[in-house]
Amino acid sequence: MKLYDGGRAPNPRRVTLYLAEKGIAVEMVPVDMGQKEHKSDLLSTKNPLQRLPILELDDGTILTETIAICRYFEELYPEPPLFGTGALERAQVEMWQRRVELNFFLPVAFAFRHTHPAMKDWEVPQMPEWGEINRPKAQEFLVLLNDALADRPYIAGAHFSVADITAYITVGFMKPAKIAMPEGLTHVQRWYASVSERPAMKAEKA
Amino acid sequence: MKLYDGGRAPNPRRVTLYLAEKGIAVEMVPVDMGQKEHKSDLLSTKNPLQRLPILELDDGTILTETIAICRYFEELYPEPPLFGTGALERAQVEMWQRRVELNFFLPVAFAFRHTHPAMKDWEVPQMPEWGEINRPKAQEFLVLLNDALADRPYIAGAHFSVADITAYITVGFMKPAKIAMPEGLTHVQRWYASVSERPAMKAEKA
Repeated sequence: MKLYDGGRAPNPRRVTLYLAEKGIAVEMVPVDMGQKEHKSDLLSTKNPLQRLPILELDDGTILTETIAICRYFEELYPEPPLFGTGALERAQVEMWQRRVELNFFLPVAFAFRHTHPAMKDWEVPQMPEWGEINRPKAQEFLVLLNDALADRPYIAGAHFSVADITAYITVGFMKPAKIAMPEGLTHVQRWYASVSERPAMKAEKA
Repeated sequence: MKLYDGGRAPNPRRVTLYLAEKGIAVEMVPVDMGQKEHKSDLLSTKNPLQRLPILELDDGTILTETIAICRYFEELYPEPPLFGTGALERAQVEMWQRRVELNFFLPVAFAFRHTHPAMKDWEVPQMPEWGEINRPKAQEFLVLLNDALADRPYIAGAHFSVADITAYITVGFMKPAKIAMPEGLTHVQRWYASVSERPAMKAEKA
């Protein structure tokens, strides 16, 4: 199989960090999103939504959507579990992964795509007012996340999971989206520092 | 366990249709969203995001997020499978469930919440221009979905799945969002007619 990768873009990074955490090696096909290669005829055939990453299996079957790709690998290589263990923990990972994605990742992505000058050709029509009202939404979610992290090390509970990967990537995405980290969120700060020290994250930065 | 239910709102309906398809009976606690009961102190403690549905287990553990609740039941009652069988099919269901949610359900929800007069107190600030640009996004996705349905009965493949539930609910949600079904999407029409005839959907309408 091979993974069409978008480099530093947030969704491709979620998959490559997931693979690094699991210790899974996959053939990577770099796609230059700056040159809009993901909108080429070849890749549009593979994913009509023109987004990355795209996983192509050896028989030509295509899988897209970050979390669907991660779940596929999770079924093939269950250890270490990054989607939880047992019915309740698996549901809690899913709950937090979705809370983070819908209430944090998405507002940050809207702020970036609708206010950043470099996105003007990408997000049509760009609507800066929509980007603006998403900034405080992301910050409000961080306050809720801070409360949740008061009594546990990771977002979904006792174990590191895919919800932590989504949130870690999103905190980094706040910078180009020009969203400030609210002050005083000591539990979020402690969590972020601890995740940043993980080997997969340090290797990515190097 | 008990399920705090929001009646006809789209996310609560996704869970109740899922339960009906599975034949699972759960104690329901009706919550009057018209009276904003989901924002009461009691329910805000259970879900600080102030959304429904909320599943409360017998030991007080809370699960929120539509798909996390469905996944929890899927683990407890695997038959009939609504999240696929085997690594590849499960990933394909997840892929389509997410495609439908992010590129269809979400644009329709934005159109409804940002343009409908009744939503003015709910979506603050309401931004009608944002609602407007989401209408064609939903229609574009239906064209892509029509292509996908050309060679199979259900959205993720040969079997009915949670992706069909999300899409079925979203088609119904187009009406209050004032989004017209594009003409000529014969595969979508055939799929929608077939899903509408399922016992769970007919029982809901009755």
